[in-house]
Amino acid sequence: MSALLESYVAGHWFRAQDEGEPLLDAVTGEEVARVSTRGLDFAALVAHAREVGGPAVRRLTFHERAGMLKALAKHLGGFKDEFYALSLRTGATQRDSMVDIDGGIGTLFSYSSKGTRELPNDTVVLDGVTEPLGRGGAFVGQHVYTSRTGVAVQINAFNFPVWGMLEKLAPAFLAGLPSIVKPASQTAYLTEAVVRRIIESEILPAGSLQLVAGSAGTLLDELDEQDSVAFTGSAHTAAILRNHRSVLHRGVRLGVEADSLNCSILGIDVTAEDPELDLFVKGVVTEMTVKAGQKCTAIRRAIVPDALADTVVTAISDRLAKIAVGNPANESVRMGALASRSQRDEVRKAIEALRNSADIVYGNPDRVDVVDADAEQGAFLSPVLLRAHPGATEPHDVEPFGPVSTVLTYSTTDEAVALAARGRGSLVASLVTHDPAIARQVTLGLAPWHGRVLVLDRDDAAEAAQAGGHGSPLPNLVHGGPGRAGGGEELGGIRGVLHHMQRTAIQASPDMLTAITGRWTTGAERRVDEGHPFRKSLAELRIGDSIVSDSRTVTLADIDHFAEFTGDTFYAHTDPEAAAANPLFGGIVAHGYLVVSLAAGLFVEPNPGPVLANFGVDNLRFLTPVKAEDTIRVTLTVKQVTPRTSADYGEVRWDAVVTNQDDAPVATYDVLTLVAKTWPQEDAATN
Amino acid sequence: MSALLESYVAGHWFRAQDEGEPLLDAVTGEEVARVSTRGLDFAALVAHAREVGGPAVRRLTFHERAGMLKALAKHLGGFKDEFYALSLRTGATQRDSMVDIDGGIGTLFSYSSKGTRELPNDTVVLDGVTEPLGRGGAFVGQHVYTSRTGVAVQINAFNFPVWGMLEKLAPAFLAGLPSIVKPASQTAYLTEAVVRRIIESEILPAGSLQLVAGSAGTLLDELDEQDSVAFTGSAHTAAILRNHRSVLHRGVRLGVEADSLNCSILGIDVTAEDPELDLFVKGVVTEMTVKAGQKCTAIRRAIVPDALADTVVTAISDRLAKIAVGNPANESVRMGALASRSQRDEVRKAIEALRNSADIVYGNPDRVDVVDADAEQGAFLSPVLLRAHPGATEPHDVEPFGPVSTVLTYSTTDEAVALAARGRGSLVASLVTHDPAIARQVTLGLAPWHGRVLVLDRDDAAEAAQAGGHGSPLPNLVHGGPGRAGGGEELGGIRGVLHHMQRTAIQASPDMLTAITGRWTTGAERRVDEGHPFRKSLAELRIGDSIVSDSRTVTLADIDHFAEFTGDTFYAHTDPEAAAANPLFGGIVAHGYLVVSLAAGLFVEPNPGPVLANFGVDNLRFLTPVKAEDTIRVTLTVKQVTPRTSADYGEVRWDAVVTNQDDAPVATYDVLTLVAKTWPQEDAATN
Repeated sequence: MSALLESYVAGHWFRAQDEGEPLLDAVTGEEVARVSTRGLDFAALVAHAREVGGPAVRRLTFHERAGMLKALAKHLGGFKDEFYALSLRTGATQRDSMVDIDGGIGTLFSYSSKGTRELPNDTVVLDGVTEPLGRGGAFVGQHVYTSRTGVAVQINAFNFPVWGMLEKLAPAFLAGLPSIVKPASQTAYLTEAVVRRIIESEILPAGSLQLVAGSAGTLLDELDEQDSVAFTGSAHTAAILRNHRSVLHRGVRLGVEADSLNCSILGIDVTAEDPELDLFVKGVVTEMTVKAGQKCTAIRRAIVPDALADTVVTAISDRLAKIAVGNPANESVRMGALASRSQRDEVRKAIEALRNSADIVYGNPDRVDVVDADAEQGAFLSPVLLRAHPGATEPHDVEPFGPVSTVLTYSTTDEAVALAARGRGSLVASLVTHDPAIARQVTLGLAPWHGRVLVLDRDDAAEAAQAGGHGSPLPNLVHGGPGRAGGGEELGGIRGVLHHMQRTAIQASPDMLTAITGRWTTGAERRVDEGHPFRKSLAELRIGDSIVSDSRTVTLADIDHFAEFTGDTFYAHTDPEAAAANPLFGGIVAHGYLVVSLAAGLFVEPNPGPVLANFGVDNLRFLTPVKAEDTIRVTLTVKQVTPRTSADYGEVRWDAVVTNQDDAPVATYDVLTLVAKTWPQEDAATN
Repeated sequence: MSALLESYVAGHWFRAQDEGEPLLDAVTGEEVARVSTRGLDFAALVAHAREVGGPAVRRLTFHERAGMLKALAKHLGGFKDEFYALSLRTGATQRDSMVDIDGGIGTLFSYSSKGTRELPNDTVVLDGVTEPLGRGGAFVGQHVYTSRTGVAVQINAFNFPVWGMLEKLAPAFLAGLPSIVKPASQTAYLTEAVVRRIIESEILPAGSLQLVAGSAGTLLDELDEQDSVAFTGSAHTAAILRNHRSVLHRGVRLGVEADSLNCSILGIDVTAEDPELDLFVKGVVTEMTVKAGQKCTAIRRAIVPDALADTVVTAISDRLAKIAVGNPANESVRMGALASRSQRDEVRKAIEALRNSADIVYGNPDRVDVVDADAEQGAFLSPVLLRAHPGATEPHDVEPFGPVSTVLTYSTTDEAVALAARGRGSLVASLVTHDPAIARQVTLGLAPWHGRVLVLDRDDAAEAAQAGGHGSPLPNLVHGGPGRAGGGEELGGIRGVLHHMQRTAIQASPDMLTAITGRWTTGAERRVDEGHPFRKSLAELRIGDSIVSDSRTVTLADIDHFAEFTGDTFYAHTDPEAAAANPLFGGIVAHGYLVVSLAAGLFVEPNPGPVLANFGVDNLRFLTPVKAEDTIRVTLTVKQVTPRTSADYGEVRWDAVVTNQDDAPVATYDVLTLVAKTWPQEDAATN
């Protein structure tokens, strides 16, 4: 008897109280492992996440969490051989395993990078601008995201035992939530191996990752308002989850990513001579055969113009004929086995249903030549291409979760869009066209029905293929779709993090809002009595530290000179008569760039100090024209301080307001600087 | 017999086929109107919205839709007397009606303004930045929002017959969706009156607003993947909706805003002498009595430090004693009737349940002195204040939807946060404190459990009261809450619009992405052969129109001179030795402001023309230092064109890239200009 997989619960590896159910090698039919959760204490599992894991993660800033994800990615990279070997037993080829294993590790790297660059080094995310709520500026609103205090339960499908876990874990962890991972049993041995390596590494805080290898038992009954379930799997199971009392009555957030009937559309502009035809054919064949078509993003419907249907069917069939099916350990093999023989039975049933309104034009569902394997002991299946009858319904409703696709034809672009929509909501659609007008029409028609649309042509094809093409969700783009695809959304960079957080509108005085968010708010107190803030290191700077500069009168000579020096001789700065006719100025005005240049001259502290550089300016708006003899001054206030974890400096965002002699704001902007963490820098001499 | 209310269906006022159910005046108990939908063709209702209303709205740009909302707000403002008269019959006082009627109209104005300022004059919204997906820049990603193609069904509660409709209608309309409004029957006569005025005005496109006055019948059965239901009402009804097969199996999006057990917390820092004590007491009394406490945002739990409990109970009771209850038509009356006698029965039952773990300390649920009315014929109820026993559970679970609140006490700040969380998710919490540290601790503790948190103190109290205080959702802040409050989200400015749209990741070449989104994407084709784009009016400018400027060598003398002229003598520009020690520069560099000033000199077209002004700069980043003798040039490209509907000019956003002699980018930014729609302007002489 093979080994019983263990769950990781409350800091210990848990072994079930029975012998478990056998999991079979997809290629040989031999037993790989056994799985069971009999006796697992689900209440303790959830309590440990809530009471130990969650608080530990939330004590860290986003940048600290991002650093751990990077360390984890590097650590797992050292065990790829072990994971690849196990992956073979799931029926995956080398290329399939790369998508799963390297794709999963890459997602960790991506979230680490996004977390560092796009989130503050803090625990609260500000959403949008501060909204004025009163006339006097004493009452303002600000939306913030805070971490939910519950558990992120992640129920994954069998087809991506590594990526499926890591693509859900990374955003949840970055958001400050502990994860409970529940992989599909069929391939749980690979997930368990990865979790063992993660736990051994001790990189993640205790309690932030637990594993349920086997049935989810009463897990969902333990959940309530602050908890969430992210589910990837069948629409049937999704409906059961939606009907669970924790979801119906206890406010558990449920995100669903269900299998969908994705399509690829060949543009009506494409001729048999265009390179786009080949791109389309390649795309369909790739999606049919990668992971033996067991991908929720695979192309199930190939939608082509009537005139090219025969050409396309022939071209796809020719390519499929070259795909060697068999034991993925053999290097000549391009397509491995399905995950299990019962899975193959399901696909055969789906093909039978499709045949109600489509004919098989390539492949035999009951027979396949295999390399280096036993076609019946292993869960092998031939790629099968069908061609739909006019008005066919099954291709839009029946999902064969294997190497199967159906060609449908259309005569107008509107018809193509309407056919795509008959999938009732999908994860992804491809459009292959080189015509921008068709690209716009079809893409905007597809968009309400899809989470992702890939537009493929000769220009982006090479890079698109490298990025994984149609079938590959990317960590920086959303993954999910409306309607039948589940209505959920994952990934998408920080979007996927925010799904684990609660958005709250805070209403407060500017001082209170500053205290709550850690970011200075217009109207809040400024500290101006402690010397020039450019003399302070990052460690010394405080939100609200300010300088009110001296003033400077802008003369007509200044404006003339600036025009001549920079070459910016725009008439509003140089020609009194023409400037007077300008509807917005009514006379000579100073250049906006002159105003901000003079403002810098007013606020700068010239000597070497902790402020190392001004690396940018955000949201510069010129509010009131500056005319000759106007006198300006600038107030600079520390708005946000972001220490970098991997450098001896950090970013300081300054609020800048330039005012005139009437105290009217003439320009507002944020100045972005790099400031040393300490000053003098201990290692300054070595720079 | 009173009049039968009509529904508005497929362009006609529909009258039910029976006599309908009577609706009674809340104050007198007399019949006001009757209501029924017997015989209403719900399939035709939904089909009309999908086939007529939706396409008509989506043909308009966001700015055009915003203009209609403004016109509608103005139009309805002319019928306020009519609405106020009907509102009296719902039991509402003048102040209550203002919240409902003026609040509703104000929401239309707010969405009109937000739509014009924060959305493009287009039909697609871009979300976030363009994501590079390949190494060569030929493959990029961009998230977009497009309008869902279905119907927005809006099921409202009885307490805000006007605001409840308009706060859902405005964002849905702006998003491009047709609305089907289904008010609660009890007060549907007021909603029907407003809808009549809207339909009569012919401001909104045909089919974009329909009304169901009476039972929703089979409406939900007609819905599928592109449709949504926004529901405000009881948790009980919400659970029934969640269980509807259209939601479970057909991907209908359901948003729920359910009643919640909101709290107000008095900070542990507050003493009996502080003004915050009075603010807290006033807040509780206001929320108990406005709309006779029939607000899903009302304060049900007043959480106070042990030491101040007696003081608070006495102060609230004293204030309640001054509230005149009775006929809202009488000017002395401060609190009107509940919506119906059956509603009063419900509240009395809830008070009985609360008495399991709390004592009544003010008011008698069975007796109230009323002004100018019959206390039994009208649905009158005394305000009732309870004080909870230690460890009480009912105040956290039982919602009395009337003028009822319970005082609970705490001893530590953590305990106060924990008590608030026992509401299991609420719409709003107040915190009354003048201590910034307590504000941060409590607000961040409350945030995961709340959609909105109001922090009240002496500084913001006056403006907060003008904005409606604790109980008033504002159009620019989100309204909704997690857990028991339903998990939905409405309003929040454009956030509420995006909930009606589908987010889709587009993957394409920069050229295709430009064609699809109507916004120029880095890497897309530039048109440089048509003369200076500053000579083109808004009507002539095309996305991608570019100018590649001449070049200019930046000399040490330029840098010296700029430092002297502007006063920006930062050492990196002036002191070779110190600059060499700077870890980022390693020698003298040009000022960033010098670079952008010279760039403006390079790209400007000096003569009067359609470009009227540069009003700002966005996302300026300095990427490579410019050293003496470096030669720079700038490429300026039309990125986005936004005609203003109410002016003879519009906004043009230009992509600016400054490069050096090695073609390395030294600065990137967006230049924002105002450009005349035509040139020469026909009415230029009159300006």
